[in-house]
Amino acid sequence: MITNDPYAELERRFARMSAVNRAGAILNWDRSTMMPDGASEDRADQLATLGVIAHEIISAADMPDLLSRAEEGKGALDPWRAANLREMRRSWVHESALPADLVEARSRACNACEHAWRTAKTNADFKSLLPTLTEVLTIMRRVGEAKAAALGTSLYDALLDEFEPGGRAARVDVLFGELRAFLPELLGRVLERQRSAPAPLDLDGPFPVDAQRRLGEELIRIIGFDFHHGRLDVSAHPFTGGTADDVRITTRYDEADFARALMGTLHETGHGLYEAGLPRDWRRQPVGNARGMVLHESQSLLMEMQACRGRSFIDFAAPRMRAAFGKDGPAWTEDNIHRLYTRVAPGFIRVDADEVTYPLHVMLRYRLERAMLAGDLALADLPGAWNDGMRELLGVVPPDDALGCLQDIHWPDGGWGYFPTYTMGALAAAQLFAAARRAVPGLLEAIGRGDFAPLLGWLRANVHSKGSIAGTDEILTAATGSGLGVAAFKAHLESRYLSA
Amino acid sequence: MITNDPYAELERRFARMSAVNRAGAILNWDRSTMMPDGASEDRADQLATLGVIAHEIISAADMPDLLSRAEEGKGALDPWRAANLREMRRSWVHESALPADLVEARSRACNACEHAWRTAKTNADFKSLLPTLTEVLTIMRRVGEAKAAALGTSLYDALLDEFEPGGRAARVDVLFGELRAFLPELLGRVLERQRSAPAPLDLDGPFPVDAQRRLGEELIRIIGFDFHHGRLDVSAHPFTGGTADDVRITTRYDEADFARALMGTLHETGHGLYEAGLPRDWRRQPVGNARGMVLHESQSLLMEMQACRGRSFIDFAAPRMRAAFGKDGPAWTEDNIHRLYTRVAPGFIRVDADEVTYPLHVMLRYRLERAMLAGDLALADLPGAWNDGMRELLGVVPPDDALGCLQDIHWPDGGWGYFPTYTMGALAAAQLFAAARRAVPGLLEAIGRGDFAPLLGWLRANVHSKGSIAGTDEILTAATGSGLGVAAFKAHLESRYLSA
Repeated sequence: MITNDPYAELERRFARMSAVNRAGAILNWDRSTMMPDGASEDRADQLATLGVIAHEIISAADMPDLLSRAEEGKGALDPWRAANLREMRRSWVHESALPADLVEARSRACNACEHAWRTAKTNADFKSLLPTLTEVLTIMRRVGEAKAAALGTSLYDALLDEFEPGGRAARVDVLFGELRAFLPELLGRVLERQRSAPAPLDLDGPFPVDAQRRLGEELIRIIGFDFHHGRLDVSAHPFTGGTADDVRITTRYDEADFARALMGTLHETGHGLYEAGLPRDWRRQPVGNARGMVLHESQSLLMEMQACRGRSFIDFAAPRMRAAFGKDGPAWTEDNIHRLYTRVAPGFIRVDADEVTYPLHVMLRYRLERAMLAGDLALADLPGAWNDGMRELLGVVPPDDALGCLQDIHWPDGGWGYFPTYTMGALAAAQLFAAARRAVPGLLEAIGRGDFAPLLGWLRANVHSKGSIAGTDEILTAATGSGLGVAAFKAHLESRYLSA
Repeated sequence: MITNDPYAELERRFARMSAVNRAGAILNWDRSTMMPDGASEDRADQLATLGVIAHEIISAADMPDLLSRAEEGKGALDPWRAANLREMRRSWVHESALPADLVEARSRACNACEHAWRTAKTNADFKSLLPTLTEVLTIMRRVGEAKAAALGTSLYDALLDEFEPGGRAARVDVLFGELRAFLPELLGRVLERQRSAPAPLDLDGPFPVDAQRRLGEELIRIIGFDFHHGRLDVSAHPFTGGTADDVRITTRYDEADFARALMGTLHETGHGLYEAGLPRDWRRQPVGNARGMVLHESQSLLMEMQACRGRSFIDFAAPRMRAAFGKDGPAWTEDNIHRLYTRVAPGFIRVDADEVTYPLHVMLRYRLERAMLAGDLALADLPGAWNDGMRELLGVVPPDDALGCLQDIHWPDGGWGYFPTYTMGALAAAQLFAAARRAVPGLLEAIGRGDFAPLLGWLRANVHSKGSIAGTDEILTAATGSGLGVAAFKAHLESRYLSA
């Protein structure tokens, strides 16, 4: 088609694609929270179809011409529109690299594998996952090859780039190298220090699910989660889904341990506040999307690890915990709860890991997924390689694959290249929280009063409202004075776990 | 495009349209059950976009050619494919009659009006609904005019035809005329007879929501509702949504009166069983859809009115009701509960009406919507006309518009031409239930034992599995020996309310 205003035509098309993708986001949420199990194939068909439709919109034959013509007129666009056009090009490069049949095959293969994974995990039966996981890996290699050719990167970088625009393995290697240079030694010192102090007392349950849910809702409402634009529900694997105007966060309850659900809820609340804070005028255009998974994970980890496991928040929340469960006594003091919530212990499960050992879980996955994609590690050998890596990095070996290589949804669901963003997000979280504390006097004291407005205001201004107008490093530099690094994370761990 | 097998290409396109529509069905369900109120505009945008995409699929430029060429080769198609092709043509005539901007405008206007209606109803404030309802009516007139031209019918028939294929006002007028010939007199005799007997005793509440939900789930599971392919949730206005593989029914609970929620649940279960029983191989093609709203309403009313308000079911269910709420005593006998559930009383609210007065509610709406569409009744005059009609037909006048012309979602939501299908469905329900009793010896006795398999088996074979392979009257004639009429309904009312 010929149009006099190619940029306006692009906005119209990307708005349509956004609506299709937002519809898909709600259907994905429903699949994990509400859908009856017999509807799995029906839903897979719906999601695959919407995926193909979105793909067709962006890879229409006249898109290259529209993009080129709009780029010729870029000088006349304001900064948001210019950035939006850049992000449109970026989306187009990623999507047009893939033929429609590959997009559909990926959607269907991931759906089938995710479905098989739920059973395989329950039965700790890795073998049963091999056929569908092999299919997913084969398809993800094709996806990676196609995108690598389009982006001019390596296969792994092309996959990582989808989750973290501009993310590159070379950069990850540097950051992870710096972490490995101090983390094992630091972990040893933390464990030594913990051993020399009396163990914290366990909180005595059980903790009824209703009381847990009420406590979680109370706390995240105080933090700033808006229930007029969001929900809190239950799923097997906690996540944040939905849309910026309709944020769906989930958790899962364990009546023996309320901290798991509560910390999961606070973590997802960090993700949810990022989505809810995206620029109102642009959230249906590429430039109004969250910048990438590094900043996304930084927001969840900032909320959970930096803010809510800090002493100020515990001082505020502990009385509410006692009230929620009608408890009292020495285990329920602020001191003891804080010690529980900052307890460090190498374990099997990534999502339950403390912030000191968490990067080691990620390094293992990063190493293994690169090897599998490169063909250096056969899928059938994954369980053994996993256990070897756990022994080397964390000093523990899972008793079965449910607690080992079957624990995460990412590989069955096509999320290859995602894992490093967790630890890059942890680094960014420490960096942003330190900057916020420097910029906002009395930040911790406000959190101690349950007043999250100063923190949330700073995050909105410096991260959320930026959408994708700039790159991750640019946003971080503007907010904190430097690009992503390990210094603030190291300082945070030393301060929380080795001083005072 | 040129294809050697135009019919196969049509199946491919209609399968894609089905996936888009099924996605929309889940999103519609979510909107009424789960969605936070602030997401209304976001969801409207998603649904409008999916609606336009579905419209574009069916109204593609080459569709007339594909349909014509497929019709030329019709002789080679088996009966299901031939019927599918006929239904494709029918869908195409309906959809291609509307330009895309009208489809989108209808979606957005109905969303806005439905949203305004919720507040207007709460506040009994009809005036606040006038602007958005005027917009909806204007758009529905345009829709009706466009379809009337394509179908060669009147404007009203064109709207009715969307809900009930082949439905015509002339036929409705005949049936409603036959009803009016005996119903007021029959109602008078029923009320007279009730007055001469002692009034039934009220069931003593309150009835906790949890206990109500458990009872409803227990009973519909026994009836045959499959929770692996469906859910029961809560919404302001009970409905059946979702897909044939993922049936979403809703009810709403009142702690003072469990019958409302329970009968609503049983009613929606009838709809849900129809959807779940649609032909497995065809449910993603037009011929595999439910035939129309007359048969759909027949299935809900057959379940609720014919089966579950009958004495056999009450005998089965009453002990379960007593157990669910821990009750006993003279109000909780089978006799008294049956008398309560077959109580006739003219009231304000259609959805709460007994089966004797229900058709009068429908006649009122049918008369008013025809007048509004024809321009013979101004929207501003609707409340007065409503109240006049209630006085004339039912002898009662609502105290405010919330109990009057604001009670139903249909007009705000674009469901003009829908109302007559309720009463045609009631006629069909009586006709089908009578035929099932003739065909299946011991049907009522089985229901009395909680064995719904004989009834469900007959419905599956004679109605559900037919999908849209034939017209409503053909399906009815094959199942009952005659097309739609009032005789069985009249006989049912006389038997239940005036004999024994």
